[in-house]
Amino acid sequence: MADTRELVKDMAEKARSASRRVALLSTDVKNRVLLETADRIEAEKGFLQEENRKDLDAGRKKGLTPAFLDRLELSDKVIASMAQGLREVAALPDPVGEVVRMWKRPNGLQVGRVRIPLGVIGMIYESRPNVTIDAAGLCLKAGNAIILKGGSDAINSNLALASILSSVLGDNGVPGEAVQVIPTTDRSAVTDMLAMEEEIDLIIPRGGEGLIRFVVEHSRIPVLKHYKGVCHVYVDRYADLEMARDICFNSKVQRPGVCNAMEGMLVHSGIAGEFLPMVGDSLREAGVEIRGCSRTCEILPWATPATEADWGEEFLSLILAVRVVDSMDDAMDYIARYGSNHTEAIVTRDYARARQFLNQVDASLVVVNASTRFNDGGQLGLGAEIGISTSKLHAYGPMGLEELTTTKFIAFGDGQIRQ
Amino acid sequence: MADTRELVKDMAEKARSASRRVALLSTDVKNRVLLETADRIEAEKGFLQEENRKDLDAGRKKGLTPAFLDRLELSDKVIASMAQGLREVAALPDPVGEVVRMWKRPNGLQVGRVRIPLGVIGMIYESRPNVTIDAAGLCLKAGNAIILKGGSDAINSNLALASILSSVLGDNGVPGEAVQVIPTTDRSAVTDMLAMEEEIDLIIPRGGEGLIRFVVEHSRIPVLKHYKGVCHVYVDRYADLEMARDICFNSKVQRPGVCNAMEGMLVHSGIAGEFLPMVGDSLREAGVEIRGCSRTCEILPWATPATEADWGEEFLSLILAVRVVDSMDDAMDYIARYGSNHTEAIVTRDYARARQFLNQVDASLVVVNASTRFNDGGQLGLGAEIGISTSKLHAYGPMGLEELTTTKFIAFGDGQIRQ
Repeated sequence: MADTRELVKDMAEKARSASRRVALLSTDVKNRVLLETADRIEAEKGFLQEENRKDLDAGRKKGLTPAFLDRLELSDKVIASMAQGLREVAALPDPVGEVVRMWKRPNGLQVGRVRIPLGVIGMIYESRPNVTIDAAGLCLKAGNAIILKGGSDAINSNLALASILSSVLGDNGVPGEAVQVIPTTDRSAVTDMLAMEEEIDLIIPRGGEGLIRFVVEHSRIPVLKHYKGVCHVYVDRYADLEMARDICFNSKVQRPGVCNAMEGMLVHSGIAGEFLPMVGDSLREAGVEIRGCSRTCEILPWATPATEADWGEEFLSLILAVRVVDSMDDAMDYIARYGSNHTEAIVTRDYARARQFLNQVDASLVVVNASTRFNDGGQLGLGAEIGISTSKLHAYGPMGLEELTTTKFIAFGDGQIRQ
Repeated sequence: MADTRELVKDMAEKARSASRRVALLSTDVKNRVLLETADRIEAEKGFLQEENRKDLDAGRKKGLTPAFLDRLELSDKVIASMAQGLREVAALPDPVGEVVRMWKRPNGLQVGRVRIPLGVIGMIYESRPNVTIDAAGLCLKAGNAIILKGGSDAINSNLALASILSSVLGDNGVPGEAVQVIPTTDRSAVTDMLAMEEEIDLIIPRGGEGLIRFVVEHSRIPVLKHYKGVCHVYVDRYADLEMARDICFNSKVQRPGVCNAMEGMLVHSGIAGEFLPMVGDSLREAGVEIRGCSRTCEILPWATPATEADWGEEFLSLILAVRVVDSMDDAMDYIARYGSNHTEAIVTRDYARARQFLNQVDASLVVVNASTRFNDGGQLGLGAEIGISTSKLHAYGPMGLEELTTTKFIAFGDGQIRQ
């Protein structure tokens, strides 16, 4: 609708203009905004939960699922975790202004690359209102302005959070347009955002595969995304089997509903007879359903025979596809075919195989002898993350503060001209 | 058309499959392919020029402009320069496999980022057939497969070049699908390419603004591009005026038809009366037409009064917009409004102003006391370049071998699991 387009256009232009000032904020001011917002979120819990209740009530009337309502709720725990997240981001080093490298040309020109903010980031997400705060905190710390379009079912919660942010920004002399929540539930606002390539530098969608595909198809702005995480552990013939058992168990069971959980386990035929019963017992006790190839089912008679649809499936639950393979090449072929470039692990004691797997497997994290669950900004040491990219442009893997910046070239001369 | 779509789809799938092998090629093999191609291009000059003549004859019949035919021609000089370019790329360090950084987590997990190829690159370009070789050389060295869609007027030249490449690839045991020229002049091949997000990782368009806008609007694949270069030199009140004169002269005159040439000169009012006549004489002698603001025209009565359309115009010729400004802030506001985020220079002796300009100006290269003409991969020390990006995602500024790669995370564990 024309009204929505004008609204979004106006917000985007204001964000563009605010972004120039946000880019120049001192680290002190940025950290103060983050820490004060954390305090205010805790202090105004009552107000936030009241606004959140409007969304929850409307959602219940609308018949939203309990899982959806759960993600929508600003519980005490969610509020504490938003505040904690802001404090952690405040404690991270400021990426802006870092001189990444500097070198001298034969003519004496000193050339470097310095880290700068991207500019304006557009965030499109579904039900979780905590994304509003998490994303705003990271983007601000990296010197960016942000426009947030959350799910319509969370509109009151998101606007309440935005009002706190905007008031803290004002108190600290930062333009309120640095963080804006689009105040409409009109879905055309999403396509409007995606067309504003002059004002918005990057789109980050968070949500189901449907939302993300929609965004990629309609955007003229670069998009950072991952569709899904179909992660594997390959247990090599030369694996330490106890280590392999612990790693597979952790990768599958520690938190099965997330993108870096193991969905497929590949076991070398030379050790399958010994290993599968070992790991099988632990997994079975934890309630994992194994969908196995025929050789797996021979060794573990209680396993369910897998169908073609189970290979490469993102279960996000206590279901695991298991296949016995005759070589590491077969395992890598399987991963190339069914994997999603997210996280792939090998367990082996063999030096050459570890190296070959690391070199040849194409995934945002390739890991030797550790759990797939480490593919996470915090776990890998990036601090907080805004998502995990499985596409290769700009960022591949967890995206932290650094991935919310770019570098420009700078050059110091003494009158050099080109010959 | 359906036939074209199938053809392109088939080529893209073959490129995807070839890219896995190209990614693993040793530096030696890649360099051998580049050097042998250089030799073959020179040895088969007769064949190349014969095929090129078909394009030139058809172009003349079609009434293409002399400038267009000039870009289309595989002259002795162009052939020598293609061969030279390949030899230079062979001499550059191989970016693939470089461990960019490595660190250790508290649990002992050793985490790093290693440089890997992007995968498959789609190149869309207009008349110059030398792009076929330049782009293929850079993409191959960075471990990528490449699909090239050149202008239909260069089809015979491009296919001839591709046949040489493909034969050298075969001689070295590299799949010929690592470099493919789309053998059709059907323009729908471009839109077909732009939809193949599963097979192609990056699109690089080279050509006029019309082509680039078309590509950005229709692509589901990330695009690296620059629309235009509207570069400025700001001559500060505290400039060394002789240095400023030389820098402005070089920036404008050394090669006026390229994207890093100066299109606008901003002169502080405090020194305009002294500086403009100094630089004006040199520029005038070189045949430069000055389109000036009213204050410029007062000082240089021979200047043409500028119209609004002259501010921010990419002249690509011996025309220069000149404006007198009262402060550096005015100069930076002008640059933010009329610049194209390409190259911006300041000439000053003042430390604080140099720093402020470097920090606040948003351009892929910000330069102090040197010519804008240095914004070029070779000049900045990146080796060869495949283009200059003025968008910020993935690359901002000249794109060399490194920008044709990405990094994946790797992690070495000893059995770590997540708590």
